[in-house]
Amino acid sequence: MFPGSFDPITNGHLDIVQRAASVFDEVIVAVLVNSGKSPLFTADERVALIRAACRGRRNVRTDTFSGLLVDYALKVKAGVIVRGLRAISDFEYEFQMALMNRRLNPAIETVFMMPAESYSYVSSRLVKEVFELGGEVAGLVPPAVERQLRAKLEARGAGRS
Amino acid sequence: MFPGSFDPITNGHLDIVQRAASVFDEVIVAVLVNSGKSPLFTADERVALIRAACRGRRNVRTDTFSGLLVDYALKVKAGVIVRGLRAISDFEYEFQMALMNRRLNPAIETVFMMPAESYSYVSSRLVKEVFELGGEVAGLVPPAVERQLRAKLEARGAGRS
Amino acid sequence: MFPGSFDPITNGHLDIVQRAASVFDEVIVAVLVNSGKSPLFTADERVALIRAACRGRRNVRTDTFSGLLVDYALKVKAGVIVRGLRAISDFEYEFQMALMNRRLNPAIETVFMMPAESYSYVSSRLVKEVFELGGEVAGLVPPAVERQLRAKLEARGAGRS
Amino acid sequence: MFPGSFDPITNGHLDIVQRAASVFDEVIVAVLVNSGKSPLFTADERVALIRAACRGRRNVRTDTFSGLLVDYALKVKAGVIVRGLRAISDFEYEFQMALMNRRLNPAIETVFMMPAESYSYVSSRLVKEVFELGGEVAGLVPPAVERQLRAKLEARGAGRS
Amino acid sequence: MFPGSFDPITNGHLDIVQRAASVFDEVIVAVLVNSGKSPLFTADERVALIRAACRGRRNVRTDTFSGLLVDYALKVKAGVIVRGLRAISDFEYEFQMALMNRRLNPAIETVFMMPAESYSYVSSRLVKEVFELGGEVAGLVPPAVERQLRAKLEARGAGRS
Amino acid sequence: MFPGSFDPITNGHLDIVQRAASVFDEVIVAVLVNSGKSPLFTADERVALIRAACRGRRNVRTDTFSGLLVDYALKVKAGVIVRGLRAISDFEYEFQMALMNRRLNPAIETVFMMPAESYSYVSSRLVKEVFELGGEVAGLVPPAVERQLRAKLEARGAGRS
Repeated sequence: MFPGSFDPITNGHLDIVQRAASVFDEVIVAVLVNSGKSPLFTADERVALIRAACRGRRNVRTDTFSGLLVDYALKVKAGVIVRGLRAISDFEYEFQMALMNRRLNPAIETVFMMPAESYSYVSSRLVKEVFELGGEVAGLVPPAVERQLRAKLEARGAGRS
Repeated sequence: MFPGSFDPITNGHLDIVQRAASVFDEVIVAVLVNSGKSPLFTADERVALIRAACRGRRNVRTDTFSGLLVDYALKVKAGVIVRGLRAISDFEYEFQMALMNRRLNPAIETVFMMPAESYSYVSSRLVKEVFELGGEVAGLVPPAVERQLRAKLEARGAGRS
Repeated sequence: MFPGSFDPITNGHLDIVQRAASVFDEVIVAVLVNSGKSPLFTADERVALIRAACRGRRNVRTDTFSGLLVDYALKVKAGVIVRGLRAISDFEYEFQMALMNRRLNPAIETVFMMPAESYSYVSSRLVKEVFELGGEVAGLVPPAVERQLRAKLEARGAGRS
Repeated sequence: MFPGSFDPITNGHLDIVQRAASVFDEVIVAVLVNSGKSPLFTADERVALIRAACRGRRNVRTDTFSGLLVDYALKVKAGVIVRGLRAISDFEYEFQMALMNRRLNPAIETVFMMPAESYSYVSSRLVKEVFELGGEVAGLVPPAVERQLRAKLEARGAGRS
Repeated sequence: MFPGSFDPITNGHLDIVQRAASVFDEVIVAVLVNSGKSPLFTADERVALIRAACRGRRNVRTDTFSGLLVDYALKVKAGVIVRGLRAISDFEYEFQMALMNRRLNPAIETVFMMPAESYSYVSSRLVKEVFELGGEVAGLVPPAVERQLRAKLEARGAGRS
Repeated sequence: MFPGSFDPITNGHLDIVQRAASVFDEVIVAVLVNSGKSPLFTADERVALIRAACRGRRNVRTDTFSGLLVDYALKVKAGVIVRGLRAISDFEYEFQMALMNRRLNPAIETVFMMPAESYSYVSSRLVKEVFELGGEVAGLVPPAVERQLRAKLEARGAGRS
């Protein structure tokens, strides 16, 4: 299982999905529905964008979850949580979460995978920031994500006028 | 003096209190009353929870402070600030604060202590997050804190309905 | 070009400006006008404080920008972005930004410079925090910044009463 | 495949072996025969100690290799390299190696697993150092390793006299 | 000035040379002749390999130095030391050296540049290690370095037989 | 107790000694006599240099030890091990050692203190390196250490001719 916010999914995420799919029998991309945050894309939109990007991969499916990650893992019988590691700051946060998850359910193991170094600086947050300022994000996100970002921006612009 | 937000106190904090109490003559657990943030527990509740957890330790007392830490240290004649170090991210932030405090008052020294490795991933923020999602936090916080977290959550649930 | 929020400029920033001015032909201190954040000082105030602090340096000028940093760099024909590096956490964030900027425009190079170690803990945020709590910030910021901080604080105090 | 020097195997290594064995179909513990270094235990001794410690685990086997790790992985048809991550310094070295291995053979994936936090400070080098100075290593290494360390030390003592 | 051991020069080094040459008027690649270490290539060989790789760059020249870096910088009237930063471990070592050099001569500034992320894992040491084990290093070093590595290896093999 | 190699003692070490002496009743500077390494100064020379530098501090004494640090601490009834923390790399190594020492004897606590930021880059190794290359080390080590370094260097030069 590969959990995350995916608001929106980036090519860095997809790189990890692809690597996980080559190592494990089945990969569930699990979108966190976090009522506290205000994401740019709704959970349904995020799921649709992931499905579009993963079309053709037979052992990848997409789902949403809320609540504790380990409870969801148990529900879908996933024994492994996959997380991408890009940098030291990732490392510390991911380790803290992984140790907590291990305490909450020792039967579920977290493994870390490394994206291609060309994605080491790509994050959903930075992609959105650059796009809003007019920067080019082709190559950092799938084409459908880029189209949707444009639509969101235009809708917001229209809403303002 | 061992300063912090303690919103709420965790077993990781208590581990440091105990170690500090074995090294220094007296330990003051100093609860920061920060008007800017909106804590889950009031300063009074936090103090009460710390007192309950430290009952029986003769050289530990609990107090609140606002304003500059070094001014408070001076007021209570504490020459040493104790801070727990768990990880690299702690390290950088703590060093920045310690260097600033040293500049504000060079007579007050900051010393760093290391919690048991079993508490390396425990933070007040993560404990609250896990608890709200229905996770088990026994063993991460004192029993009284767990009871209070439950009470807070039920009160909030009631407030919603 | 030395971009930043400079809310307000500190002696750590000025140390980098001075070093950059000794290495490069001309240095533009570029104040980010970020409509999203709510800074303490307006962009105009920030520019005025930087100009006051850099008076007498012939190859330093101050400007504001919004939008993408690399677009602004192109507009003012700056081939180099200068950034200060103090600590590991700086390092990771700065590298992520520099790699993104390189992707957005490969012709613009980011170089990192190191402030004097006596400024390793000085940041605009910490200076404001300490000042608001009544701490001494002389030596951390230029005198004009200290005066303006006092004025802001008094104005706010008056606004409250 | 879980490669390493294992000079000797520690309980931290065994913790990773056990976790890997629960996630993957088969685990090969691959002992690096490095002609350049002078290990305390011969490759045969290291293999014997690992076999003794892993007795009863049906999907774990032990082997030696020399030369490039990815060449060995290809030979034994291992598609995944498992590495333990304890700390930041591990992280940087492991990432450098993993990126190089990916370049040498993109079909072989490196995944990182996290030992129990109680083993976060255990390394073969530190265990040997502590043992030689007369420290207790029970609990840090399997009993057979402790016995062999004692035998090595006595043999050396005899050699000296 | 871009100082280093360059034993041998890699494409990661060349990437920094090229970036430095685009930012500064002239770049001196300065090969450290360190009597204490036993390099694979002699200083003359290292210089020749760098010259071959930098042929055609008009503002790059290559030299050797021994003794203190800042003394050499003074001798060749270089006001700036350029260093590549790839990772955290680089960062700490480089900062320690840069602060020491600043103390030894405050007039010489160290600036840090970032190689392309595709070279983030390339070091002279790792290239040599991989090559000796039979791995492919094309793309990591210039072609002439690869040929020389092969010649060194064959000479050594011949010496053994 | 403040243990170390002190080969030789630097002003960074002395800064920590002074801070420890202001916080604890008595400080023992404990020189590690490590038969494995080949230090520049003999244990007796190192002790003499420390004593000269600490003359006048009534609650500081100097001693040598070999074997396990915690065994020595027990022998001299020291309940606290003091270590200086300058940087991340220190942090990781020191934590590993402190956790191991805690395991070997849980009654002995390690506390970390922070040197003045002006000593953040000073280490015995770097001081020796710079001195041998003809660099100025006044201000980084006590005057007696500088004299002894000069004497060692001249003796070695004489030995060569």
